[in-house]
Amino acid sequence: MRRLLDAAALEFGEKGFHDTSISGITARAGTALGNFYNYFGSKEELFRALVQDMSARVGERARGALSPGLGALETERAALLAFLGFASEHQEIYRIIDEAEFIDPASFRLHYETTANRIAERLRAGEDAGELRRGMSDVHAWAIMGMNVFLGLRYAVWANGEDLEQVTEAANAMISEGIRSKS
Amino acid sequence: MRRLLDAAALEFGEKGFHDTSISGITARAGTALGNFYNYFGSKEELFRALVQDMSARVGERARGALSPGLGALETERAALLAFLGFASEHQEIYRIIDEAEFIDPASFRLHYETTANRIAERLRAGEDAGELRRGMSDVHAWAIMGMNVFLGLRYAVWANGEDLEQVTEAANAMISEGIRSKS
Repeated sequence: MRRLLDAAALEFGEKGFHDTSISGITARAGTALGNFYNYFGSKEELFRALVQDMSARVGERARGALSPGLGALETERAALLAFLGFASEHQEIYRIIDEAEFIDPASFRLHYETTANRIAERLRAGEDAGELRRGMSDVHAWAIMGMNVFLGLRYAVWANGEDLEQVTEAANAMISEGIRSKS
Repeated sequence: MRRLLDAAALEFGEKGFHDTSISGITARAGTALGNFYNYFGSKEELFRALVQDMSARVGERARGALSPGLGALETERAALLAFLGFASEHQEIYRIIDEAEFIDPASFRLHYETTANRIAERLRAGEDAGELRRGMSDVHAWAIMGMNVFLGLRYAVWANGEDLEQVTEAANAMISEGIRSKS
C-alpha cells in the first residue's frame, strides 16, 4: 500500500493524471498488477487516496515540528519551515493537489479546508493565551495558508537556492509585526 | 476577438480544457466556426491567449483601483479589494489559471511571476517612501500574492455571503501591523 502510494505520487507528479497508467505505477512500485486491485478499484480511487494521504502527511509534518513550549508565532514559523521542507522533498505534491481541483474537487476542497481549520485553531489558541491580537478568524487562517502555499511554490518547487530559514523568517516577521514602518 | 475570449473563459471555466470544443466556444460567442480560425490556430493557442488576457485584466483591475495619493498599505488594501471583486465577477479565473499549470505551464508561471513582480515593485516604492520597513523583498511579495489568491478562492469563489470589505480589512491589518498582541 505505502509502496503503491509512493510510486503513484511520483508517476502522477511527473506525468499528470491522464498520462499515468496503473501498470506504470505497479512497475514503479515493483509489484504485480494484481496487487493493485487488492487495494484500489481504479486509478481515480488511488488518486483520491493519494490526495488524502498527502494532505495527512503535510499535516503530520507540521504537527511534528511543533511542541507545547512554542509560542503562537514560533508555532507558525515552525509549521511554515516544516511545510517548506516537506515541499522541497516532495515537489510532486503541488501537481497532485492542484490536479485534484479537476480530478477530484471534493478532496481538493477538503484538503484546504482541513489545513485552514488547523491554522485557525492554532491562532485562536494563541489569542486565548494573550499572545495574538483579539479577533483571530478564518480570514487570518486562509491568508496564512495562502502565504505558505505560494512560498512553497516559489522557494521549494521553483527554488533557486534560496535559504528556506531566511524565507521563513521574513514571512513570519511580516505576520508577527507587520510591514508598516515604525520610524 | 473579445467575444471569443469571453465565451472561451466561460466554456473552459465550466467544462475544463479537455471537454471544451472550439465549436462550443464559437456557438457561445455567436460567431461562425471559420471566424475562430481568423484569430487562433488551435484550442491550445486560444487557451494560452486567454490565460494571458485574464492575467492582464487582473493586473489592470488592480492598477485601476490605485491612485498616487494612496499610501503603500492603502495601496495593498485597494489592490486586494479590487482582486476580490474581479474574482467574484469572474470565478472562472481560478479554474483557468489553475488548469494552465497542466495545459500551458509557461503561462501559469509567467502569470504569477508578473503578479509578484508588480507587488514587489509597490512594496519597494513604499519602503523608499519610508512607509514600509526596510528589507521589502520578493518573499513579501509572494507571501502577499498567496494570501490574496487564497482569500479569493475562499471568499470570492467558495463564497458564503462574507463581506469582502471586512475580509480585506482583516488581511490588510495583518500585513500592516502583524498579529502579535501589543498588550
